[in-house]
Amino acid sequence: MEEIKKYINDNKERFLEELFSLMRIQSISSEENHKEDMVKCANRWKELLLEAGADSAEVMPTAGNPVVIGKKTIGANYPTVLVYGHYDVMPVDPIELWNSNPFEPVIKEDRIWGRGANDDKGQSFMHAKAFEYLVKSGTLNCNVKFILEGEEEIGSGSLYDFCETHKELLKANIILVSDTGIIASDTPSITVGLRGLSYLEVEVTGANRDLHSGLFGGAVANPVNVLCKMIASLTDEQHRITIPHFYDKVLEVSEEERQLMAQAPFNLENYKKALDIEEIYGEEGYSTIERTGIRPALDVCGIWGGYTGEGSKTVLPSKASAKISMRLVPHQDSVEITNIFQQHFESIAPQGVKVKVTPSHGGEAYVAPIDMPAYKAAEQAYTQTFGKRPVPTRSGGSIPVIAGFEKILGTKSILMGFGLEEDAIHSPNESYKLQHFFRGIETIVLFYGYYGK
Amino acid sequence: MEEIKKYINDNKERFLEELFSLMRIQSISSEENHKEDMVKCANRWKELLLEAGADSAEVMPTAGNPVVIGKKTIGANYPTVLVYGHYDVMPVDPIELWNSNPFEPVIKEDRIWGRGANDDKGQSFMHAKAFEYLVKSGTLNCNVKFILEGEEEIGSGSLYDFCETHKELLKANIILVSDTGIIASDTPSITVGLRGLSYLEVEVTGANRDLHSGLFGGAVANPVNVLCKMIASLTDEQHRITIPHFYDKVLEVSEEERQLMAQAPFNLENYKKALDIEEIYGEEGYSTIERTGIRPALDVCGIWGGYTGEGSKTVLPSKASAKISMRLVPHQDSVEITNIFQQHFESIAPQGVKVKVTPSHGGEAYVAPIDMPAYKAAEQAYTQTFGKRPVPTRSGGSIPVIAGFEKILGTKSILMGFGLEEDAIHSPNESYKLQHFFRGIETIVLFYGYYGK
Repeated sequence: MEEIKKYINDNKERFLEELFSLMRIQSISSEENHKEDMVKCANRWKELLLEAGADSAEVMPTAGNPVVIGKKTIGANYPTVLVYGHYDVMPVDPIELWNSNPFEPVIKEDRIWGRGANDDKGQSFMHAKAFEYLVKSGTLNCNVKFILEGEEEIGSGSLYDFCETHKELLKANIILVSDTGIIASDTPSITVGLRGLSYLEVEVTGANRDLHSGLFGGAVANPVNVLCKMIASLTDEQHRITIPHFYDKVLEVSEEERQLMAQAPFNLENYKKALDIEEIYGEEGYSTIERTGIRPALDVCGIWGGYTGEGSKTVLPSKASAKISMRLVPHQDSVEITNIFQQHFESIAPQGVKVKVTPSHGGEAYVAPIDMPAYKAAEQAYTQTFGKRPVPTRSGGSIPVIAGFEKILGTKSILMGFGLEEDAIHSPNESYKLQHFFRGIETIVLFYGYYGK
Repeated sequence: MEEIKKYINDNKERFLEELFSLMRIQSISSEENHKEDMVKCANRWKELLLEAGADSAEVMPTAGNPVVIGKKTIGANYPTVLVYGHYDVMPVDPIELWNSNPFEPVIKEDRIWGRGANDDKGQSFMHAKAFEYLVKSGTLNCNVKFILEGEEEIGSGSLYDFCETHKELLKANIILVSDTGIIASDTPSITVGLRGLSYLEVEVTGANRDLHSGLFGGAVANPVNVLCKMIASLTDEQHRITIPHFYDKVLEVSEEERQLMAQAPFNLENYKKALDIEEIYGEEGYSTIERTGIRPALDVCGIWGGYTGEGSKTVLPSKASAKISMRLVPHQDSVEITNIFQQHFESIAPQGVKVKVTPSHGGEAYVAPIDMPAYKAAEQAYTQTFGKRPVPTRSGGSIPVIAGFEKILGTKSILMGFGLEEDAIHSPNESYKLQHFFRGIETIVLFYGYYGK
């Protein structure tokens, strides 16, 4: 362990500069004008993998953004670890809320600041450096494959086909991923559950043009008012989702498991304080941890319609739109949920408006058993670096491809995340604690040690 | 009548060029960066009034945009007509929907196209030209005063104070206004009722920053979902407004008057076709004409919150906002309604969010008696130019200052409008029929003839 620490310390300036070279590339997958940045970022990853000690690395085309594959084979008798990460990042607006340029990473207050600092450039890059150490020190005891994709933030659309056509290339005993978080710096945890996702856009159209709200108000359907009513009706007083059959396949977690979950450290007052809210808000009968861990949710991620500029405009808008995310749990099927949403939403449209539902992307929920060897190895590694046994947790987030890997490749994933809630991923001023970046590298090195035994 | 027609025909190119000189000035009162354009437009009006034959004209300061005052006195024994109009216009976005530059007026398909073509530059300018004819032909039989303000589209905020401090200057027997429409080219009408207005902005805030919709979705109030629920709850299944005491002072129109209203020509199929809607939508128990004429309405004019860009972003927004317009009827008081809205809206906010209501502007409803001399004179004038007796109608729109004039100056208004629904005021591609522009001038000239007798 001292040796790893020393290696990190001797090379940390270089490690950070290499990470920054990835973070400076504006690889926003949801914006069309960043297509070239995606290719640039993939190529940079290829260079970094070769420099870290891969036998080979290449940028491979998909129907969308390219995938980076790197490999190091030490022998047929060793287990194979497939490291998964993503080099694409979320959009950066509202840009005015950033304290520094999101694509010009800086170190401040012992943190790396910038888009992708944590999600997932910072976290995935720890694997490149842990791998580098293992190769340089001659202690690598697993075959290692890397796969880095550029569409995670938009649903990994092209990766499924890629997996289908490259099953042999991606064959492994375990998939190792750092794209999640831990409860706190002094409370390590391993994510054993992820929610699925169905994301879609809805549009309500009233009259064929914006109308004068005086001359028409009260006599013609206002698509904003109607959209509000339709969205409002999707959840009831108990904050349950009202779409028929929505809960049909939801895995009801046993009372025993719920009691275990309740033992995870959680301080409601701190939670409220950190978010500056007076009260929490969610499905009746469940705790906050349960609401994000084992229960589905429906959230409007964006809404717009009519006049949104300065001052007032007395207009009855022609259109209103919203982006809606549904977080799913085992065993909800994202395609099925998208379909029943679409059917239901169209069915509740009042006369006088037209409704269009456009599915965007989705993915399935995932649960990992805590008795698999990779979990045990990760548990030992965390215990050693954090000085405390990690808690198994279920995250409310989604990494749709994790369920996809299991389905297509038949391979389980171990989610060794090191992020914190305060890292503000997907938000302005994303950051990643330097201490976690370095400790993550150590923990990953130890994982290989235990797993390869 | 032939003489008026000849005068218009001989001078029409000049008339249009003069109107265009007003329309080219981007006098958008709701946008701060057009402050200079407001002054420019006021000064251009002053020039045009002097050229048309006013004894004097001046641009007078107010707390906001200036007011233009013009005067022509022919004698103490003659009645005085105060012509009111406004030189400010609505914003032009969505600009991409305009077929031509909104501030570069063009004539096409026998119409004037551009922002303000009708509302209210086109309509108010008819008065300058009718006045010019009366002066030039020596047939003016009334004292005439002009008042043109620059804040009608944002609630005439400064004009009330101006009226209070200039009561003598504005003293008149009747106020003459063209800022409304008629039913159709072959169905003249005179507006005898206007709705009042309460316009405000609401903001709902959840957590102190945008959150990851996976990590927090289901456990924390989403301000967009909450705003939708709050807005949805403002109207019930019968499309009645649910704010307590909202209807307390609404003037219930007699069965007899409702039967008269029902005789106004209205073709529901054409109405739906023109708007491209399959069904109308409004308060149960009332016809379309009643819904905009004698019943209040609540419309969201704009809504925004969260991610509204291209593609998808899985965010649980920190804030959501909406601009809300309530159209009022006699005898609702706009300040009182604004207050009860604010109280009610704040009271229905669930725990977990903060709500801010910001009143924007308002004005009272107005009803004019059809037996006053000015109505009779207008009726005769329309009958002569349109060949048909005009129908008295109640418009759903608001000209808040009309009720203000009555309250402060004690003077009634006669609303001689010539616009059509298809003119698309407040919308992209506003236009005004040339035929109505010229016939309006004729009708106004005739009005003076009958009224001054």
